[in-house]
Amino acid sequence: MALFSMKLENLQQLYLKELRDLYDAEEQITQALPTLIQAAHNPALKDALKEHLDVTQRQISRLEQIFNNLNEKSSGESCKGMKGVIKEGDEIVSAGGDPATIDAGIISAAQRVEHYEMAGYGTVRTYAQLLGQQEHARLLQQTLDEEEQADQTLSKIAASVNVEAKAA
Amino acid sequence: MALFSMKLENLQQLYLKELRDLYDAEEQITQALPTLIQAAHNPALKDALKEHLDVTQRQISRLEQIFNNLNEKSSGESCKGMKGVIKEGDEIVSAGGDPATIDAGIISAAQRVEHYEMAGYGTVRTYAQLLGQQEHARLLQQTLDEEEQADQTLSKIAASVNVEAKAA
Repeated sequence: MALFSMKLENLQQLYLKELRDLYDAEEQITQALPTLIQAAHNPALKDALKEHLDVTQRQISRLEQIFNNLNEKSSGESCKGMKGVIKEGDEIVSAGGDPATIDAGIISAAQRVEHYEMAGYGTVRTYAQLLGQQEHARLLQQTLDEEEQADQTLSKIAASVNVEAKAA
Repeated sequence: MALFSMKLENLQQLYLKELRDLYDAEEQITQALPTLIQAAHNPALKDALKEHLDVTQRQISRLEQIFNNLNEKSSGESCKGMKGVIKEGDEIVSAGGDPATIDAGIISAAQRVEHYEMAGYGTVRTYAQLLGQQEHARLLQQTLDEEEQADQTLSKIAASVNVEAKAA
């Protein structure tokens, strides 16, 4: 979310604000993922992050569909939460050390990103339902499902990476 | 997580780093909650946030037990992720506007905090199990359960607050 000049007068305004916040968050993720992909050592982790970059681009398109439908612009919010979460991933990468341990740290940072997004998309999906925007709710639910899926994939990869990191 | 001078050489080091990160996150939450409690209008929301302040203090004590057991200090990490997430709550409060809409925004921000913590505690609980620290795992699981409970309580309160915000 970001500093905004407008007061929040009703759920429709809050909905729009949170959509813009998520849009900025997704754009930040798009910029941050290539560094993590390059830094990851485990091939399954590299692939999962690459796939998530594609998924993120689809998620951005869904948000753009919603903004078009609302006849509103997508810009205007800077998601400080995501900025902080992404910094953590950068720090893991720049710390260096044992490859499996760095991979475990990348997974941990990526799962914080996923959980943060799950909270955000869960909220706007609920707002969309309440505001009678059933098509928006369907699109947002699709993204929410993908975030949950990504989180589970990372947990599976962590199962082997963490064991390697323990033995390092 | 924070900038650190030490390379990450194994899971034990990553575990300690992430515990310190969570410790700093909890301390930030303790400082941030009083502002949200004061700003909240809905009595059930105010009560839930007050209760979470007590819960957070117990969660800090659990982490201190773990640091004592490891004979390690709790300080040394600055959780940039939580810093960003908390800023979002502050911005909602300072925006002002319709009381129910502000409450809905506070709930949304608080749920991002909860989800962020769920990701973090899920990770360290898994590390603790792998590292043979069964008592740590038990303590961390307790906190994880409390975070999930807090998230559900907020969702229940949101159900009525969001309807009020829609009608504003």
